[in-house]
Amino acid sequence: MNSKLQSYLNVIDESVQNFQLPKNPKQLYEPMRYILALGGKRIRPVLTLMACELFKGEHSTAKNAALAVELFHNFSLVHDDIMDQAPLRRGEPTVHKKWNENIAILSGDALLIESYKLLCSYDAKLSQKLLHIFNTTASEVCEGQQTDMDFETQKIVSIDEYVEMIRKKTAVLLGCSLKMGALVGGASDKVADDLYQFGVNLGIAFQLQDDILDVYADQSKFGKQVGGDIIANKKTYLLLLAHQNANENQKSVLEKSISESDASIKVQHIMAVYNELKIQEKATSKMNAFYEIAMNNLKHLSLPEEKKQPLKDLAEFLMGREV
Amino acid sequence: MNSKLQSYLNVIDESVQNFQLPKNPKQLYEPMRYILALGGKRIRPVLTLMACELFKGEHSTAKNAALAVELFHNFSLVHDDIMDQAPLRRGEPTVHKKWNENIAILSGDALLIESYKLLCSYDAKLSQKLLHIFNTTASEVCEGQQTDMDFETQKIVSIDEYVEMIRKKTAVLLGCSLKMGALVGGASDKVADDLYQFGVNLGIAFQLQDDILDVYADQSKFGKQVGGDIIANKKTYLLLLAHQNANENQKSVLEKSISESDASIKVQHIMAVYNELKIQEKATSKMNAFYEIAMNNLKHLSLPEEKKQPLKDLAEFLMGREV
Repeated sequence: MNSKLQSYLNVIDESVQNFQLPKNPKQLYEPMRYILALGGKRIRPVLTLMACELFKGEHSTAKNAALAVELFHNFSLVHDDIMDQAPLRRGEPTVHKKWNENIAILSGDALLIESYKLLCSYDAKLSQKLLHIFNTTASEVCEGQQTDMDFETQKIVSIDEYVEMIRKKTAVLLGCSLKMGALVGGASDKVADDLYQFGVNLGIAFQLQDDILDVYADQSKFGKQVGGDIIANKKTYLLLLAHQNANENQKSVLEKSISESDASIKVQHIMAVYNELKIQEKATSKMNAFYEIAMNNLKHLSLPEEKKQPLKDLAEFLMGREV
Repeated sequence: MNSKLQSYLNVIDESVQNFQLPKNPKQLYEPMRYILALGGKRIRPVLTLMACELFKGEHSTAKNAALAVELFHNFSLVHDDIMDQAPLRRGEPTVHKKWNENIAILSGDALLIESYKLLCSYDAKLSQKLLHIFNTTASEVCEGQQTDMDFETQKIVSIDEYVEMIRKKTAVLLGCSLKMGALVGGASDKVADDLYQFGVNLGIAFQLQDDILDVYADQSKFGKQVGGDIIANKKTYLLLLAHQNANENQKSVLEKSISESDASIKVQHIMAVYNELKIQEKATSKMNAFYEIAMNNLKHLSLPEEKKQPLKDLAEFLMGREV
């Protein structure tokens, strides 16, 4: 990671650490402090700071907007983890496991409310602009999460429906993070919207990469179990692509694997189909296409090239192309 | 109910019915429409409209703020019903029973976000004022709910702690409803704050009445099971007052009743202690005291008396003193 990126991360870490919450009720505020302290990549708030600095130059003015995005992200993690019955988050017990589901519901709600408070800390006109994109994004994130849950029981999911789901569930918040930073920095609506598009396309590329890594990551470097999505019968981009391209024989392998109880056999059978159909290559090419659109969005931004460098670096970092 | 009150209720019902939500994802937006259509007393949004009309006279400008309050109230009901594992709400299945818990969590989240959208529909300066009181209130409602859950496992709860809990969980939203209406109507901050106090004190009186009715209501007129709080070992104002006033003998009856499995014997034993200690009279007197403070808040508002009449009527209606 380069030093510029590291310095942004330091600002965020400091903001999170200095963020004041009341002490009581303990069971409400401790889980909020806990999830925030678990860390994570802090990509979203860094995007907000970077976008702000593209314009008026002082990222500290964007601190509250950056923190709002991070709080919103953590609100969605706490609630999603209940819905997914996830026991672990970043290697530690999830809030609903460490406390209970009721506490996770309520402290998630309170995180969302805190994120609104932070956005209301700007002057009225700017706050209203920030809230407009934030509200739209927040609704879309809920829609994306519901659509993802719907997919579990839906027999046929098209590639387009899948991309639209990840756009809402993951990508729009990256766009929103950038747009809010740009607005705080005094960017025009047009430029803020262009940055939003860059974030959305980067976010889709990032999520596609997540799907690919679940199957093809080097286990020694990957934080989760390789093949986890396959074992959980999760409809990923790879699986949907395989369904779309499979012949009758391959379709039957995919169908039968759903009820295969031996995890390693299941992974083996599905991966065999993926390999026959060159799914890794096809998915990687789709991911690269979205990444290229994002880079193109960046290229067309009317800003000096050297200003754009930190965003390029972050995009590379996000895609695991270590800088 | 008088015709003025009825006309406000009609405005609210119309607003709720005309409130547009996207069609898809169905599992996200249908539960939101469902809970909103279940009705309820709509006290909070009526307070917002009334407060607005005390000033500039046109309640329609306060419609979005009123709807925001009603949506927030419904968000808290949907999430509270999960936490309380309540099967019914207004005689119909709760959202988590009709659909499932995940859907109830997410559609609750989306209701909260929609309430923010409505508050952002005013001009920037007014929005900021509305959001300020709304954010504070929303946090307090979460704190009140958590404190209420904490009480379940807490051995000793003082009367003051209890009143503070119901202030946050129930009363501040009534205050907020009035204050937001007043701000939309162009009231000064001072007058808006005075109305807020009126709402909070009325809200506490209302909640104390709820505790009293749970034990002493006429079953034929009461929507819930009389004695429900006693059967559920709920720490109500009445029970805490009984504990505070009980002699050793009465204390032991209260203690033993916790584990009594026969519901009617339990209610009978606890009510015997309540009667010995004149708990109904004492609780009623406390309720009346808060009601009187509320009336006093209203009296000191610098507004013509005839303007205050609808608020007085609503307060009487709320306290079951039919007007």
